[in-house]
Amino acid sequence: MSEFRGYEKMSLAFLKDNKIKVGDFIKIKSDLTYDGILMPRYEYTDDEHIVLKLKSGYNCGLEINKIKSVELISKKESKIETEPKIQKNSSLPKILLLSTGGTIASKVDYRTGGVTPALSAADLNAYVPELAEITNVDAEVLFSEYSENLMPEHWKKIAERLDSLASSDYKGIIIAHGTDTMHYTSAFLSFALDGYPIPIALVGSQRSSDRPSSDAAMNLIAAANFVLNYNKKGVFVVMHHNESDDLISCHLGTRVRKNHTSKRGAFQTIGGDPAFLVMDKKIKNNLHDEFFKNNDYQPRIKLDTRVALVKYYPGFDGKLIDNLINSGYKAIIFEGTGLGHIGKSMYDYVKNAKAKGLFMGMTSQCMDGRINMNVYESGRDLLEFGITPLSNMIPETALVKAMWALGNCEDIEGMKNLMLENIASEFSD
Amino acid sequence: MSEFRGYEKMSLAFLKDNKIKVGDFIKIKSDLTYDGILMPRYEYTDDEHIVLKLKSGYNCGLEINKIKSVELISKKESKIETEPKIQKNSSLPKILLLSTGGTIASKVDYRTGGVTPALSAADLNAYVPELAEITNVDAEVLFSEYSENLMPEHWKKIAERLDSLASSDYKGIIIAHGTDTMHYTSAFLSFALDGYPIPIALVGSQRSSDRPSSDAAMNLIAAANFVLNYNKKGVFVVMHHNESDDLISCHLGTRVRKNHTSKRGAFQTIGGDPAFLVMDKKIKNNLHDEFFKNNDYQPRIKLDTRVALVKYYPGFDGKLIDNLINSGYKAIIFEGTGLGHIGKSMYDYVKNAKAKGLFMGMTSQCMDGRINMNVYESGRDLLEFGITPLSNMIPETALVKAMWALGNCEDIEGMKNLMLENIASEFSD
Repeated sequence: MSEFRGYEKMSLAFLKDNKIKVGDFIKIKSDLTYDGILMPRYEYTDDEHIVLKLKSGYNCGLEINKIKSVELISKKESKIETEPKIQKNSSLPKILLLSTGGTIASKVDYRTGGVTPALSAADLNAYVPELAEITNVDAEVLFSEYSENLMPEHWKKIAERLDSLASSDYKGIIIAHGTDTMHYTSAFLSFALDGYPIPIALVGSQRSSDRPSSDAAMNLIAAANFVLNYNKKGVFVVMHHNESDDLISCHLGTRVRKNHTSKRGAFQTIGGDPAFLVMDKKIKNNLHDEFFKNNDYQPRIKLDTRVALVKYYPGFDGKLIDNLINSGYKAIIFEGTGLGHIGKSMYDYVKNAKAKGLFMGMTSQCMDGRINMNVYESGRDLLEFGITPLSNMIPETALVKAMWALGNCEDIEGMKNLMLENIASEFSD
Repeated sequence: MSEFRGYEKMSLAFLKDNKIKVGDFIKIKSDLTYDGILMPRYEYTDDEHIVLKLKSGYNCGLEINKIKSVELISKKESKIETEPKIQKNSSLPKILLLSTGGTIASKVDYRTGGVTPALSAADLNAYVPELAEITNVDAEVLFSEYSENLMPEHWKKIAERLDSLASSDYKGIIIAHGTDTMHYTSAFLSFALDGYPIPIALVGSQRSSDRPSSDAAMNLIAAANFVLNYNKKGVFVVMHHNESDDLISCHLGTRVRKNHTSKRGAFQTIGGDPAFLVMDKKIKNNLHDEFFKNNDYQPRIKLDTRVALVKYYPGFDGKLIDNLINSGYKAIIFEGTGLGHIGKSMYDYVKNAKAKGLFMGMTSQCMDGRINMNVYESGRDLLEFGITPLSNMIPETALVKAMWALGNCEDIEGMKNLMLENIASEFSD
């Protein structure tokens, strides 16, 4: 963060003249006297005010022209962090906690109110002493990124690291991950590590770990109980089921979406209930017994990002499809309307994409339900032009699967076959 | 539909040689003798079979090489339609039923199993004799299109037609509309016809009107009861609440999505309950009393389609933003992750779009919840680059509103102000 973040022109000059930076504790005399920490400024900023966070916790905007004097009480604290010590008990089963960043690995900076990804996996473990009672945790930091910044190359690195541990003595792997794109990562791992010998649980939180209201500890403990007691394969997203602290859901990695921006129970299994629920330390099997074939482990970790997810809407300009072709894309996943439609104005562009050899798959922007392109003329036209209906695969999962399939197939025909094969319960009944 | 739809090479030659077309009733001698209607073919077609629909309703594929003889029993029926007569009762209040097409205005072709939009508004009215008991319906066909083919220019024509009726003696307007994009159209009408003097109800169905299981009649009757008894303003989507025939929802036109591909209760109000429920003939006010300000009628029917809805995902190539700029787009609605984020790899492209004067608004691909770009570094960065957070506006509504605002404002600053003004309850508490 910049030392003068959000300040400009008059307010910036004022701070520089008075040698004050964001985070400093200062005393201002104006109509009254104010003690507080200089805050960064964000949206709708004017240059005529500075903002202090008072001891009460309130932020207070002060007009520069009315300020009579400024006094620096103390500079911004720089933190000295010590790596917390973890007691290990070698008689307990081992799990690996792999951290990629995200809120679950973040701390609130109470001085500025912002959240930054600063927590190591070891910190995390230390925040949750209950873990040490049930398992022997090895902690490893792979990245420290919010998940909106995680890219397909990060998915690949996670998969490669896990592949290198396929013969380890871990009972399971927990991946701490930002929630924003956790369901994209879980989908990739489901395909790339098909048949991985031990369960993989992605865990995030909607409130940072050092907040009293954090969901991090509950989600982590549930994930640990889940991977320790569930003796089968599969990739899961483990998060609060709702606002209650008593119930944690384990969603199939290919059937899950973040469906609320802020609630703790933000994740939902689409088209059904979560695969498992964890209540206290008990695992409730909530659906069928088997989701995954008991495949031998078959890592296919390549991917090819020349795939676009295209959400259709009235007025969508088909020329954007030409742009994709000209930009070298090899596949398009459409998020069509209803049962899997896009308008007639798209037909020529779709035919052209087919002629150029692109794979085109159809999903729906309806949250739930199945593609059926045989009911209406539009759907039948699109089938004829070579668009492949993808049943009830979630659009985000279809995008990730297409990147994965394109990376692991010789040609588009092979890719199409792989797209239609149910690898990791991405199609559900 | 082509007379030989889906047939090619050998199978096409076979049909032409035998002077048989899709829809003909024929007798085939092969291993057995088959009587049935020649069906069109769709997906995964080979050229070695033809398909008959037998009297049992089953489709049967017959291998051409094994066919011993073919006999034409009767050509495809061509239908003779007569316009049904409607009894009018001049003492009843009047409503207008405006048809734009869609399943609600469609018939199943029982010979081929396909659905085609062939029903006039007058047909519709005649299918639902209950309507004539409560209201005097004028019926008018504006278009006969499935809604995946309805474009912003269609929205404009609907709005213009309604504007011309603003001083009529109708108690309300019902618009028969395909379900796929009904929520886009309802959003446009909500903005363009702000303060329209009488209620407007968009009605669709998930099963065509001539099927026993059709939801068309129930939805139409509920919509008529609603516009006759609800003496306020507003644009609503009136559809089954769930699979039951007893409960119909009236959703606010700006807060609704089609969220299931096939169920009758496909539509949902996002972030709350429907505005009204219709049970039998009673209207239950399910939320607040007032959604719409009692504005004077203020038609603003222009629109400008140089707006793109961009769904962000890991691996999204920011160059696609440059493509939009180069293609002349003036505004982008992002469907970001979580609280309103897109990855760092997008930053330079976003800054460039801002420098080029585009409006950029942020919505979330999470189904529910509110944008908050002050929590995380990513959000604050994006605010600083000039992206406008759009609270809990639904992405589709934000797209439509942006097209409307761009068309009705002098400049991007005016557009931004309009985007942040709550016109038709597009922001909810």
